[in-house]
Amino acid sequence: MSTFIRGGTVVTSETTFRADILCDDGVIKAIGNDLEAPSNAEVVDAGGQYVMPGGIDPHTHMQLPFMGTVASEDFETGTAAALAGGTTQIIDFVIPDPEEPLMDAYQKWRGWAEKSVSDYSFHVAITWWDDTVHRDMGILAEKEGVNSFKHFMAYKNAIMVSDEMMLASFARCRELGAMATVHAENGEMVYYLQQEMLAKGITGPEGHPQSRPPEVEGEAANRAIRTAQVLQTPVYIVHVSCKESLEAITRARLEGQRVFGECLAGHLLIDDSVYYNDDFEYAAAHVMSPPFRPKDHQRALWRGLQSGNLQTTATDHCCFCAPQKAAGRDNFTLIPNGTSGVEDRMAVLWHHGVNSGKLTMNEFVKVTSTNAAQIFNIHPRKGSLSVGADADIVVWDPEMTRTISAKTHHQNIDFNIFEGMEVKGSPSHTISQGKVVFKDGQLNVVKGAGRYIKRPTFNTHFGALEKRRKETAPRKVSRTAEAAE
Amino acid sequence: MSTFIRGGTVVTSETTFRADILCDDGVIKAIGNDLEAPSNAEVVDAGGQYVMPGGIDPHTHMQLPFMGTVASEDFETGTAAALAGGTTQIIDFVIPDPEEPLMDAYQKWRGWAEKSVSDYSFHVAITWWDDTVHRDMGILAEKEGVNSFKHFMAYKNAIMVSDEMMLASFARCRELGAMATVHAENGEMVYYLQQEMLAKGITGPEGHPQSRPPEVEGEAANRAIRTAQVLQTPVYIVHVSCKESLEAITRARLEGQRVFGECLAGHLLIDDSVYYNDDFEYAAAHVMSPPFRPKDHQRALWRGLQSGNLQTTATDHCCFCAPQKAAGRDNFTLIPNGTSGVEDRMAVLWHHGVNSGKLTMNEFVKVTSTNAAQIFNIHPRKGSLSVGADADIVVWDPEMTRTISAKTHHQNIDFNIFEGMEVKGSPSHTISQGKVVFKDGQLNVVKGAGRYIKRPTFNTHFGALEKRRKETAPRKVSRTAEAAE
Amino acid sequence: MSTFIRGGTVVTSETTFRADILCDDGVIKAIGNDLEAPSNAEVVDAGGQYVMPGGIDPHTHMQLPFMGTVASEDFETGTAAALAGGTTQIIDFVIPDPEEPLMDAYQKWRGWAEKSVSDYSFHVAITWWDDTVHRDMGILAEKEGVNSFKHFMAYKNAIMVSDEMMLASFARCRELGAMATVHAENGEMVYYLQQEMLAKGITGPEGHPQSRPPEVEGEAANRAIRTAQVLQTPVYIVHVSCKESLEAITRARLEGQRVFGECLAGHLLIDDSVYYNDDFEYAAAHVMSPPFRPKDHQRALWRGLQSGNLQTTATDHCCFCAPQKAAGRDNFTLIPNGTSGVEDRMAVLWHHGVNSGKLTMNEFVKVTSTNAAQIFNIHPRKGSLSVGADADIVVWDPEMTRTISAKTHHQNIDFNIFEGMEVKGSPSHTISQGKVVFKDGQLNVVKGAGRYIKRPTFNTHFGALEKRRKETAPRKVSRTAEAAE
Amino acid sequence: MSTFIRGGTVVTSETTFRADILCDDGVIKAIGNDLEAPSNAEVVDAGGQYVMPGGIDPHTHMQLPFMGTVASEDFETGTAAALAGGTTQIIDFVIPDPEEPLMDAYQKWRGWAEKSVSDYSFHVAITWWDDTVHRDMGILAEKEGVNSFKHFMAYKNAIMVSDEMMLASFARCRELGAMATVHAENGEMVYYLQQEMLAKGITGPEGHPQSRPPEVEGEAANRAIRTAQVLQTPVYIVHVSCKESLEAITRARLEGQRVFGECLAGHLLIDDSVYYNDDFEYAAAHVMSPPFRPKDHQRALWRGLQSGNLQTTATDHCCFCAPQKAAGRDNFTLIPNGTSGVEDRMAVLWHHGVNSGKLTMNEFVKVTSTNAAQIFNIHPRKGSLSVGADADIVVWDPEMTRTISAKTHHQNIDFNIFEGMEVKGSPSHTISQGKVVFKDGQLNVVKGAGRYIKRPTFNTHFGALEKRRKETAPRKVSRTAEAAE
Repeated sequence: MSTFIRGGTVVTSETTFRADILCDDGVIKAIGNDLEAPSNAEVVDAGGQYVMPGGIDPHTHMQLPFMGTVASEDFETGTAAALAGGTTQIIDFVIPDPEEPLMDAYQKWRGWAEKSVSDYSFHVAITWWDDTVHRDMGILAEKEGVNSFKHFMAYKNAIMVSDEMMLASFARCRELGAMATVHAENGEMVYYLQQEMLAKGITGPEGHPQSRPPEVEGEAANRAIRTAQVLQTPVYIVHVSCKESLEAITRARLEGQRVFGECLAGHLLIDDSVYYNDDFEYAAAHVMSPPFRPKDHQRALWRGLQSGNLQTTATDHCCFCAPQKAAGRDNFTLIPNGTSGVEDRMAVLWHHGVNSGKLTMNEFVKVTSTNAAQIFNIHPRKGSLSVGADADIVVWDPEMTRTISAKTHHQNIDFNIFEGMEVKGSPSHTISQGKVVFKDGQLNVVKGAGRYIKRPTFNTHFGALEKRRKETAPRKVSRTAEAAE
Repeated sequence: MSTFIRGGTVVTSETTFRADILCDDGVIKAIGNDLEAPSNAEVVDAGGQYVMPGGIDPHTHMQLPFMGTVASEDFETGTAAALAGGTTQIIDFVIPDPEEPLMDAYQKWRGWAEKSVSDYSFHVAITWWDDTVHRDMGILAEKEGVNSFKHFMAYKNAIMVSDEMMLASFARCRELGAMATVHAENGEMVYYLQQEMLAKGITGPEGHPQSRPPEVEGEAANRAIRTAQVLQTPVYIVHVSCKESLEAITRARLEGQRVFGECLAGHLLIDDSVYYNDDFEYAAAHVMSPPFRPKDHQRALWRGLQSGNLQTTATDHCCFCAPQKAAGRDNFTLIPNGTSGVEDRMAVLWHHGVNSGKLTMNEFVKVTSTNAAQIFNIHPRKGSLSVGADADIVVWDPEMTRTISAKTHHQNIDFNIFEGMEVKGSPSHTISQGKVVFKDGQLNVVKGAGRYIKRPTFNTHFGALEKRRKETAPRKVSRTAEAAE
Repeated sequence: MSTFIRGGTVVTSETTFRADILCDDGVIKAIGNDLEAPSNAEVVDAGGQYVMPGGIDPHTHMQLPFMGTVASEDFETGTAAALAGGTTQIIDFVIPDPEEPLMDAYQKWRGWAEKSVSDYSFHVAITWWDDTVHRDMGILAEKEGVNSFKHFMAYKNAIMVSDEMMLASFARCRELGAMATVHAENGEMVYYLQQEMLAKGITGPEGHPQSRPPEVEGEAANRAIRTAQVLQTPVYIVHVSCKESLEAITRARLEGQRVFGECLAGHLLIDDSVYYNDDFEYAAAHVMSPPFRPKDHQRALWRGLQSGNLQTTATDHCCFCAPQKAAGRDNFTLIPNGTSGVEDRMAVLWHHGVNSGKLTMNEFVKVTSTNAAQIFNIHPRKGSLSVGADADIVVWDPEMTRTISAKTHHQNIDFNIFEGMEVKGSPSHTISQGKVVFKDGQLNVVKGAGRYIKRPTFNTHFGALEKRRKETAPRKVSRTAEAAE
Repeated sequence: MSTFIRGGTVVTSETTFRADILCDDGVIKAIGNDLEAPSNAEVVDAGGQYVMPGGIDPHTHMQLPFMGTVASEDFETGTAAALAGGTTQIIDFVIPDPEEPLMDAYQKWRGWAEKSVSDYSFHVAITWWDDTVHRDMGILAEKEGVNSFKHFMAYKNAIMVSDEMMLASFARCRELGAMATVHAENGEMVYYLQQEMLAKGITGPEGHPQSRPPEVEGEAANRAIRTAQVLQTPVYIVHVSCKESLEAITRARLEGQRVFGECLAGHLLIDDSVYYNDDFEYAAAHVMSPPFRPKDHQRALWRGLQSGNLQTTATDHCCFCAPQKAAGRDNFTLIPNGTSGVEDRMAVLWHHGVNSGKLTMNEFVKVTSTNAAQIFNIHPRKGSLSVGADADIVVWDPEMTRTISAKTHHQNIDFNIFEGMEVKGSPSHTISQGKVVFKDGQLNVVKGAGRYIKRPTFNTHFGALEKRRKETAPRKVSRTAEAAE
């Protein structure tokens, strides 16, 4: 059975036009005016609505084992919630423990993800280093479709990378045509400040942002970018939350470096006052890293998206419920880090971005879908509406008004950081692999229907950088006469 | 008869893939793998080559009456030369004399352009102001497909606009959904410095760059941008030649303003040493405004293109031959301003941009074609390779090596600013309106085959800005109680 | 009779040390430890206090005829209020009407100022242009001790200068070794926005800031700075109120230009919410140009002072009482522009600057006194504590706490923009020309005791710039062979 | 016997005036016009000359044991050469080996320095960390007059500090009121690039700059500055050589951080082409870290000095002769790092700075003397011309022209990086501790006459920062109600 989307306004990253879309066999078969719907097709009336590529959330952590507990949202519930919000693919993370073989961790996560209801991929984190890690990065890139590796510059005494490791791993990424990605916070500074807060008796969630101020993130972002510059390889900074790291990215881009930045829906809309709330549960529910920031950072992030210096939006969706968060009641450093968002990202971005004129609709598509697909090299299969592309589509009703709430969301968590936010504009239908999986507020998904999407290495930026490296190759001076002396 | 492009690698602004393309009736009918060529089709073998949207040069001046003479290149020869270089559309300028009715000037230029061999459009310059100008802008925008108006901030005592006029005209542009474009040089400063140079006995072409230093351009660019900011309307700075104006654009973009910048092939590659050449003819041949700049500006411009802060490339193609340039032999201010380039832009951009890794191929398509089409709102008809788009296509041979020279170029001018430059990568075929008009180095064009392309108003940025204006509308304080006093 | 300051801590712009100071004949005779007080000396016990150069307010308008009325504070009351606040010299402005001979205006102001109780100088404004203005600038600079000329870029249809005039006048300043100073607001934009506000029915004081947004100031500051750059002459921007103009100044300074910026006590501490107050009198009392700005601009200004990119602090003291302000009750453009501050500047700067650690004490002396003395070339006579300098001294009690109020201030105005502000740190004694003129909260001044201070031309920056101009002089290319053709 | 300087023009960091100066007992006794010379005084005729504070070179390494050899210039010859160049004090470095007790190293260096002929002080490097280092920093700061500690971010496997150590040491500096100073190069990156160069067969001196590119310095500067920001303590970056680190400093200063930067005479004037010279000895003679940079960095550094974002100039004087440099003939990483300059700094700064108009004379005094004295808290004893200050004075003949050469210099090294440079302006007399120690090109110094100058802790910036820390102290949220649950 095929799906036919009739009468909508197609919005892509580049243009807007009236067209019908025919989906079959999981892909887009035709785009055009006055197409005819096959008799067996499910017809979606998109009149007065926008038809856009399904969202891609390039940063989620489903059922992550972390800080002594496991994230409450699993791959099934998480991908279902994503679909309900118009997001048709996630890119999650394989995070090996130090010393754990990469391939073991990778296989473990692949197993966990089999129950996904939408398509998904994996970044793999580099949390330690030896020859087997070097080797396994090659296997993952060349055989398993992993074209991005993540580096945590924070979490001292756990998964933090040293500068030496980061250089080695980035160099390996360059060789493999894989994107180096970075969680940018200076782990030494965070550790130092955490001890200082605890020593001062600041044990509540307000210690969290105060031990991770923006300069800590800005420093790390700049260091990662300089590392990539030395190696002339692209780098992608995840969850840019503050002016300091945005400025590091922007500076580098203006100087011709190929640097990319992601920002989270939460960082765009929530400020750090939440941590000073005198209700522990409320405050702790917002604990994630980097923390939410004072309001002026939000303005900077929006401008970063608009100017193109930030390319993607994500959520870092990583759910812990109140009983889990309670582990840090007497010590904020023990509160599991993470918040939800995979379901809400598209709607809050639309409402606060498009409705306010900060973003055009085309820019909305870029930052919710197309740019991620390009950077992680699954475009035009994903992130585009073109004949032959996967039929991952969202039909967007710009007039639908609803209020976000943990009571009604599909996410498996007892809290929603956007609780009470009224948004205008939401998906009326989500189509995944050509099937309508969400309509009229109802999910219609199949456990395990999601596919693991392999991502090819060497996106377009690698070729350009290879030419740059040749143009700027180290010079050797011949001093033969002298040698003859 | 149709045209079938077989076996090429399609390169768009967003992606790269293998596909055949079928053109018929002047438009693209199909894009896909293993298409079949109609029996009557002219088949282009694109094996080993790149198939890209034809170039758009948004800044040319064919047969311009200027400084007491008329540009040697007319619309027929100029559009032919463009096609030979892979550029399938130009946007030229209607420039009314002060007091000349806009509609008269517009009709005059429309007449001159009828002999064009490729498609074309017109910007219209605002060189004076009264109610009829205000009215005629409306007619041009609403009925004649003119969606951009140009403002010269230089050329005192001629076509220079005052700040007051610029405010009025930008406001009118906003109302009409038309892009305000600007030649940014502070005409008062230029005039002052010209007099100073002449007073010091500096009468040769070296007086030209010395009377138009970068700060003069930076000032004007910033002023135009601030004018647009006050009015919350988009603005486009033509021929950005220096760091100073690029910085003004970049600053504004980082602050969320919708500002666009164009740079010329010449400014990317030629430096100001040419003016100090002791051969007058050589030096004078390079006289254009803004002048060529010291080398460090070139690096900045390339970075501007790569980072996306400059969106388009153009040529300001405006040809004057040696006898014309000789008018300023004793006074550089009388040398007609202008150089050629419409034929060479694509090749020099490819060679120095793509081959060196400064630009990816996709970025090359953006800055030579797609971005201009989007900004001037003729996308996806132009600047894209998609079903239904105009079949304006260039087939690019990345291995072809040739040397640019006035002896061999198709441009109607006795000089080439890129003389002797060896480039690798050039068009093997150019297709205009679905017909092969250039192949194997030979043009096959028809006088008058070019069409005037109407450009709709209100590109995507206007909608966003209108929302911004509503969000930031002036506030009125109610002081009724007080009024009652 | 002499004055002996015993036991204080001397704070200069460069250093801090314990010393006694002996003043005689209006000048400092000795500085040292364990000096002996002459028997006839008035002894000031400065134990536990700081002894600093008296403040210099380089921007006041006593008894200014403006907008149909005359400022309520005259030279006698104004200089007395200044002394009460620790400021021992003002630099006021001669503002000729358009067409009024400069020398006439100058003599008029000199006459008005004769009743001053502290020393004073004059900037002279250039509000129109012809040969007599050019000539009179020379007379003022060479004979009358005027080394600075002011240019208003705002106030269209009144005293606004055109770009052409500004170039001519700056060039004349350069020749005379006089500082060009600028009120930076784009008068065309202001006028446009004023009309827009009135057209929208926004007639109250809230129309004032909305018709003079920061970009209007930033544009003008940048234009003035570029004008100075073209001429390679120093320039001084008065009352920098916003990030936009600070950034223009900072950019120029970072690029090696000799640009100076002044900020007002009011702009450092008051935000634009005052204009939205529903009490007209309150709102109107704050009307001055540029207007007070949103809070984030204040942070920028403080940082500008700390980093040295802003050099001076002033007040633009220009008093209009409520009945005068009422002229604009129905049309904000008719509200006389101006607020008070000459008495309060030192105390509010100390409290919010030094007490909060934003400024060191030495930096406080720089920005309240020394830098102004250097820029306007009366250092070390003024702005320093050194043997031979004028004995203009403030003895500062860092423990004194008081609340600023119109009820208790010495300023001749019915309103104080700092009303209710509690400050810690204030003058216990002010010494002018070696005499204690303020102590224990009491003034002891003599009408007419103030002297007109001539300021020599060619401060230290002019010599450096002259060398720069020689190094970068325009080049002429010799083309004799060619001329022989 | 006293010294009397007659008829000169006194130039200080703040002002310029005609005065005589009387020195006695090693200090300045009087400054004034028409002073009378004591009968026993040595009279210096300063007519037509400038009288300025003697230079302070805050960065030298006399007789440093380094990279397997010992610097050829010892404290006697080095301070003598300094005096010949107008520099009357050096601040050298105690550099303990890892594990070496700080006090041992300190005493060793104190012993070596006893033969100095001019005054001197010491920074102490922190090259390892344990409780004794923490303790000894306190002894040095509180008892030994050491108010600055140096941190090497480069030299992996030798004296490089980790981020963890840097945090601990900066925190200790803050507590002690001592300035943290930093050699900013990312040692991990340098090591990586060195191995890469060697692996590519690049073993000559050209490998030196290619393994230490500007981004390596910029990264480290930014990291050190962020570390200081987190701790809210001042930081001083030594030998800023490139735009990248200057930008990090400037950014921080514009954001209100108290950061200081030093640049070397060599970096202002010499570019990296020296390393590509095919004469090994010539190239190796220039090997120092950071290396000399491409020319555009020099322009940036000059602008940094002019704008006040760089405060001091130094030399990093560290002499190795050709036989010593030869150790790295086959491996550039073994070339001892260092060049001379202590004698030349003042003259080259004057010639290229003051004569070209980049610096005023007052600015020259700031960057060669006063600023260093203020930052390292020995002002006004050093770095000023004021009654009571040490009589360390240079009499500067602006008309003297000479050519710098290793053949004629007083430095104990066989090479001069400024060889052949003709400079206009040099010391005619240098006065140290009130005695004429250099005149008519002849030194007249006494071994051991130099004194160790203790430097008090807590310069003016610490007080301001302490207030800032109080204003921004971490907040604790009281959640008592909740605790009761």
